[in-house]
Amino acid sequence: MSENFADFLLDSIRKKGSVLCLGMDPVLEHFPPDLSGLPPKRALYSFVMEIMESVQDLTPVIKFQIACFERYGSEGIRILEEALRKAQKSGIITILDGKRGDIGSTSEQYALAYFSQQAPLPADAVTLNPYLGRDSLEPFFPFFKLRKGAFVLLRTSNPSAREVQDLKVESGPLYLEVAKLVKEWGKPFLGKFGYSSLGAVVGATYPEELSLLRGLFPEMFFLVPGYGAQGATEKEVASAFDTRGEGAIVNSSRQLIYAYKRSPYCEMGVKFGEAARLAYLDAREKLNLAIKERVKK
Amino acid sequence: MSENFADFLLDSIRKKGSVLCLGMDPVLEHFPPDLSGLPPKRALYSFVMEIMESVQDLTPVIKFQIACFERYGSEGIRILEEALRKAQKSGIITILDGKRGDIGSTSEQYALAYFSQQAPLPADAVTLNPYLGRDSLEPFFPFFKLRKGAFVLLRTSNPSAREVQDLKVESGPLYLEVAKLVKEWGKPFLGKFGYSSLGAVVGATYPEELSLLRGLFPEMFFLVPGYGAQGATEKEVASAFDTRGEGAIVNSSRQLIYAYKRSPYCEMGVKFGEAARLAYLDAREKLNLAIKERVKK
Repeated sequence: MSENFADFLLDSIRKKGSVLCLGMDPVLEHFPPDLSGLPPKRALYSFVMEIMESVQDLTPVIKFQIACFERYGSEGIRILEEALRKAQKSGIITILDGKRGDIGSTSEQYALAYFSQQAPLPADAVTLNPYLGRDSLEPFFPFFKLRKGAFVLLRTSNPSAREVQDLKVESGPLYLEVAKLVKEWGKPFLGKFGYSSLGAVVGATYPEELSLLRGLFPEMFFLVPGYGAQGATEKEVASAFDTRGEGAIVNSSRQLIYAYKRSPYCEMGVKFGEAARLAYLDAREKLNLAIKERVKK
Repeated sequence: MSENFADFLLDSIRKKGSVLCLGMDPVLEHFPPDLSGLPPKRALYSFVMEIMESVQDLTPVIKFQIACFERYGSEGIRILEEALRKAQKSGIITILDGKRGDIGSTSEQYALAYFSQQAPLPADAVTLNPYLGRDSLEPFFPFFKLRKGAFVLLRTSNPSAREVQDLKVESGPLYLEVAKLVKEWGKPFLGKFGYSSLGAVVGATYPEELSLLRGLFPEMFFLVPGYGAQGATEKEVASAFDTRGEGAIVNSSRQLIYAYKRSPYCEMGVKFGEAARLAYLDAREKLNLAIKERVKK
């Protein structure tokens, strides 16, 4: 078993033949009617568990959005704890998407919460915000020896992303400068496949920046949000991949977990779990096709 | 009762005659020996409750560091829930320090967790990370009508703060550009005292920047970390205040909650709660004196 997160991730992607990461962003208001009779926390639990069961043989990675669980306080976090352990048992790689970033002594508490041996919220990787600089990320690094990893925000997928991330610094936009820092910070964590365990978040909703970053930073593993509900197409997403068709995972949340709502799944009369599975298979095929096209070029 | 957070905060500071915010960053390794026999979560609970009881008549504000509770998963969050409710009952203003920032639909979940009527983690204000731009902060704004507020990170207090925050954008360093954005975003939320409910975090460990920002942004309420354990002096902190001696709160965590460890409190044989109270009184006096000096000039 590989001791490097980037290797571990790539191994898992190859084995499952999928670069599609299921994004677990459960929001009660979007839950199917058959769960609406339940108390909120029961509904959250049932929804998360059923989605996980229906995709666990397919997806190499699940990204859990902490906010959707924190929304329900300690009881929501308890469900997240259980979901993380369940994913671990099923051999699925877990990314905790909390975009944390704080002064060193505080970041250490977050690192212990997710990466220590007795971590209550055990995850394989996390997302991190770079605004506080290197010492805010450093407490996570010692765990990289234990096959842990992280994705630092460069270009996020939301509409206002440009507002701060595109501020022109002397040599270009800010996110590019942050990318250079991430490259430096990630050098000690290169795996045998040439990728670092310190990856980056780059939204597919900004395909030009995605393509530019791919070219400039071949050693960076990208976590790519924005595919599906946020509007990016397979072709746009494909530019996140290198000429081997590797080096990225593509996250899709709403498009998968609420697939039961949309055509053709709503007409098929399948349950939300089954709809998520079918939507996953469909998106996986489209992505693999688009990546194949890209590799040919 | 004021409907604006900045007014509410200033009222409370005036009533209690203190600009000192107690920072609740409980880390087990620093707990006093009389708690070391307890199981971790019991110790955390006892420590937090006793500290709160010993300062509740003195401090206008308590800032809770979410990481220190998340460290213990759902059980830690349950303790935070209880502490927040206890603070509320005692009429203490609460700041949840999570430095959150995410795409709009996700930030909404955080906003509901802290600010909604049935919020499991009810707080008066939060700290927010600006890296994702305006739409990541927007879901919090509707609650500003209900006396809620936020502090956006400009200049944090940690050593690596300069790394990203000082990157030179066309008109100056990044944090100054972010400050201009925060000023714009905060305009709709000005209170009767001239301060906005959208404040900013500015570390006292960078006194020159603090002084510059104070001069440029008179309507911004500052939350100032870095005093005490992180090394900033009262004189440095005083530059966060305007000529009326207002417009800022100063956070101190370790220097207060672990006061029992250091001189003169360790020699006095007082319990950690009493030590925190004495340290609070001492720091309050020094701060008030330094602010008075500043106002005179």
